Amino acid sequence: MSTYRIAVIGGTGPQGKGLGYRFARHGHTVVLGSRAAEKAQDVAAEVTERLSDVEGAGQVSGATNADACTDADVVLLAVPYGGHDELVATLPLAGKTVVSCVNPLAFDKRGAHGLVIDGGEGSAAESAQRLAPEATVVGAFHHVSAVNLWSEAEFLDHEDVLVCGDSLEAKQVAIELARSVTGRAGVDAGKLRLARQLEPLTAVLISINRKYKVHSGLRVTGL
Amino acid sequence: MSTYRIAVIGGTGPQGKGLGYRFARHGHTVVLGSRAAEKAQDVAAEVTERLSDVEGAGQVSGATNADACTDADVVLLAVPYGGHDELVATLPLAGKTVVSCVNPLAFDKRGAHGLVIDGGEGSAAESAQRLAPEATVVGAFHHVSAVNLWSEAEFLDHEDVLVCGDSLEAKQVAIELARSVTGRAGVDAGKLRLARQLEPLTAVLISINRKYKVHSGLRVTGL
Repeated sequence: MSTYRIAVIGGTGPQGKGLGYRFARHGHTVVLGSRAAEKAQDVAAEVTERLSDVEGAGQVSGATNADACTDADVVLLAVPYGGHDELVATLPLAGKTVVSCVNPLAFDKRGAHGLVIDGGEGSAAESAQRLAPEATVVGAFHHVSAVNLWSEAEFLDHEDVLVCGDSLEAKQVAIELARSVTGRAGVDAGKLRLARQLEPLTAVLISINRKYKVHSGLRVTGL
Repeated sequence: MSTYRIAVIGGTGPQGKGLGYRFARHGHTVVLGSRAAEKAQDVAAEVTERLSDVEGAGQVSGATNADACTDADVVLLAVPYGGHDELVATLPLAGKTVVSCVNPLAFDKRGAHGLVIDGGEGSAAESAQRLAPEATVVGAFHHVSAVNLWSEAEFLDHEDVLVCGDSLEAKQVAIELARSVTGRAGVDAGKLRLARQLEPLTAVLISINRKYKVHSGLRVTGL
């Protein structure tokens, strides 16, 4: 398995920190990005501490979001959807494989639901691709619970990571990175536009979590 | 477990026929509906033949879609999305529990994807509810493969049935009906508007089926 240098944009949020921890735990070098370098460094120290007993763990450091991208092979977008487009437009993403796990959701009294993007014909991943045309964007890791990611379990081995994208090569990077999370390859879920389906599906999982008091995930059966 | 009289609208299509077979196999009375009563009766005879060795199976008959609704406790909408609204508007659904497994999808050279309904703020299930305001509509059974439904296996026991709806009581009917398919209760996936997420997700499963040559389904992990 290749080891990558992975920048996690929004690396101090629960999803970014949890995925950064998982990637480093399985040998990848991780740079957590945040608006403030100091905050990113604090969280990197926390993750490093959690990895202190893990043999072969990769190095974890912190930087501003833009600096984190420098020298990264892979950039993981793990930011809230609010402000997503403005942030992505400022990042040096040309030539990078960009993995978006951004979930554009809205919440009201009736619970979580999917935000409508571009009249239903868009998604955060497609917006990122449009804003960073020289990067190659895939969608993945939308449905893994931040609580489970930060757990002691070696793998979230009941779950699958669904990966969508228009570049087979970039998709393969995320499919392999999924091994750090679930212990096995991610599932090729089709073209990038299917991020329109994968992203808001998280609203369903949040609804299930509230109803059943669990941290749910998804598995594809029949594979 | 209650046994119901279930009308399957679109009961001669693969999804309707497969679900009708599953419900009858586990003791429910099923009326398959179609535009032409004769076609529905032919398919009902085929399902009855397949159930001939199953002790305790419910009766399966065929009728026009409208006639199938008469005396039904539960009406399953299993029609293609094209023509869905026009058909639903003609059915006598007042007072019924209506379960929609309709998947509004489009297909092009790049594969399946979700059809945008009401600018991204609608779904087939919500349309049915609006067209039949005196019925109670829930969404369920979107993701079970017609091929698996028609198989000899007693249960599709790796899969989950996700159920959304605004009426807890109607949702409970579909949650219990799921036992005929998976051998266990369905999963309460939240409010009816989450059908916007559940329905087009089928495009992802179709994409996975093409890529991996499988009949995929979904399981919710962590429950």
